[in-house]
Amino acid sequence: MNDVISFSRGAPSLDIIDVEGLKQAAVAALEKDPAKTTTYGTSVGYVPLREWIAAKHGVEPENVIVTNGSMQADAFLFDQLVSEDSPVVVERPTYDRTLLGLRNRKGELHPVTVESDGVNVDELEQKLKDGLRPVMAHIIPNFQNPAGVTLSAEKRTRLLALAEEYDFTIFEDDPYLDIRFRGEQLPTLLSQDTNGRVVYASSFSKTVCPGLRTGYLVGPADLVKKIATQATNTYIAPNQFAQSTIYQFAESGALERSIETVKAALEERVDQLSASLRAHLPNASFVVPDGGYFLWVDLGEGVDCAKVLKAAADEGVQVVKGTDFVLEGGESCLRLAYSAVQADKIDEGVRRLARAVEATRV
Amino acid sequence: MNDVISFSRGAPSLDIIDVEGLKQAAVAALEKDPAKTTTYGTSVGYVPLREWIAAKHGVEPENVIVTNGSMQADAFLFDQLVSEDSPVVVERPTYDRTLLGLRNRKGELHPVTVESDGVNVDELEQKLKDGLRPVMAHIIPNFQNPAGVTLSAEKRTRLLALAEEYDFTIFEDDPYLDIRFRGEQLPTLLSQDTNGRVVYASSFSKTVCPGLRTGYLVGPADLVKKIATQATNTYIAPNQFAQSTIYQFAESGALERSIETVKAALEERVDQLSASLRAHLPNASFVVPDGGYFLWVDLGEGVDCAKVLKAAADEGVQVVKGTDFVLEGGESCLRLAYSAVQADKIDEGVRRLARAVEATRV
Repeated sequence: MNDVISFSRGAPSLDIIDVEGLKQAAVAALEKDPAKTTTYGTSVGYVPLREWIAAKHGVEPENVIVTNGSMQADAFLFDQLVSEDSPVVVERPTYDRTLLGLRNRKGELHPVTVESDGVNVDELEQKLKDGLRPVMAHIIPNFQNPAGVTLSAEKRTRLLALAEEYDFTIFEDDPYLDIRFRGEQLPTLLSQDTNGRVVYASSFSKTVCPGLRTGYLVGPADLVKKIATQATNTYIAPNQFAQSTIYQFAESGALERSIETVKAALEERVDQLSASLRAHLPNASFVVPDGGYFLWVDLGEGVDCAKVLKAAADEGVQVVKGTDFVLEGGESCLRLAYSAVQADKIDEGVRRLARAVEATRV
Repeated sequence: MNDVISFSRGAPSLDIIDVEGLKQAAVAALEKDPAKTTTYGTSVGYVPLREWIAAKHGVEPENVIVTNGSMQADAFLFDQLVSEDSPVVVERPTYDRTLLGLRNRKGELHPVTVESDGVNVDELEQKLKDGLRPVMAHIIPNFQNPAGVTLSAEKRTRLLALAEEYDFTIFEDDPYLDIRFRGEQLPTLLSQDTNGRVVYASSFSKTVCPGLRTGYLVGPADLVKKIATQATNTYIAPNQFAQSTIYQFAESGALERSIETVKAALEERVDQLSASLRAHLPNASFVVPDGGYFLWVDLGEGVDCAKVLKAAADEGVQVVKGTDFVLEGGESCLRLAYSAVQADKIDEGVRRLARAVEATRV
């Protein structure tokens, strides 16, 4: 069989990682700031990177904590806000690891449908009117994982108003923000928040690379302080060497160039993927993402993606079944991560997938 | 006032960190294994480093998990073994962050006195005979933090036998193993364990530098597997970039050279510190460490180190008071970390401390 083509993991292919730029950044980090790059540091993160992030989001450094990847940031936040039976709003579908993290803390999950312009705010409002009082709503606003859709400007405004009226935290989980390859950037919820309603998370995994495991939270200073104490008690401090390298990567201009590389490659990939899906799986329905890593495809009634997954593996293509991203339903859906597949492999990958779907019909 | 001299933090001074070697190792990591250095990786750690650690300790790779610093490893282990009211044996005195981690999990702590040849095994045995049934005994065998003493070979054997007889886990917390600058290395408890009684933790913070935040656990494969699942759910994977850099640092021979540098410097520092203490604080009693970072000094009856601490700060010298390392007592004791103070500053530091002690007497 040919090499396996994997649409399963939300990771970048090596060709869109600036390995040369990382070498230079690591050397620069150790040359320009050897003491703080090699020492324990403090739990809020490498101070110049913390300041850089604060400036990017127009907040103060004390609103920022830099962590070992953004999932570690999520874990700290959930530990602060979610305990047994805490009502939490999640998107439907949503990132499978978010569901797992909330379930492990025994949160009471309330899914709200994701539409082509983001979470259904009417549906959320109705739940609130019916008495739901969540501690938190988890929202992936841009190029949602797994649905690939983006929350509209109008819905952002309405969500913030609901958070205010019903007194809950919006967890704006936004790792794909900078990977918009078409259309206009919409203002973050964080940037419109005047009352400490939003806790914002992002990462350098999608703009630099995942192996440096650097993410961050932006939020109210008192909450950040509590999380910093928790971080101290968990690991003293996050990786100063990686964070100092990322800081140098950003300062040198390599980060901006890297983002352009990633956007150009992913736009090409998503265009190829859309064309191949239309050609080889004409019954499939999907929203073409304007950015990010993922395309969510509904293969239509009667298709059982649990079976498709196995047949696809036999054909040499890997995908993730939709049921992983919802509490119930999603049987006819798949998530296709195009971040790891170079454009010239995508058509062959979709042909294999189409043969797998066909095989499950008989 | 002159610059502050700090004996407070167990961190190496920059002059004993091989910054040049780290630059070369980071570049080598990105050149030789760019894909695995920049990707997410898996929660067990960067695979070649995991194998290197397994070979060092004579175990299989599935007995090893590499983490974001060894305190993160401790946290995972405590989450697995310690819940509310779990009886846990701790040394008296012991590392303050260990006490905090166990207290945060509401473990029931049973301190056992540390003597000049390590924990008092008779005292432990009596507690066991009296009915104590601990889930775990936390032991820092080499150059204990804060006491600076080393567990004798005979006590190691007896401890293992007690763990067997009374069915508890020994958590062998051994970050200073390779920093022995005199005397013969004693076999680890891990190396004498035939029945999965020992979970071993160590770190590259003391042999490479703390900023790369890389530690590890060695233990029974089923426990390591559970911790790997917990790690996946917490942060997907630890820092591959830092771990790949450490692997190249080790492979190139820089690690061995670095250990020699650290040992030579710390031996000089501890000799100077001992001489200065004898000269300027003749009433102080202490055990001269054969390795590691710390010297524990008892300033004698009637000295209140809480007061000394403040007076010392006024004199421009920082120390940690003994009471931080015990549940009760320790009022006349201090921990002096000599890892961060170059030899030519030590005498001045002790002179300041002696003035501070004198000031609290009046």
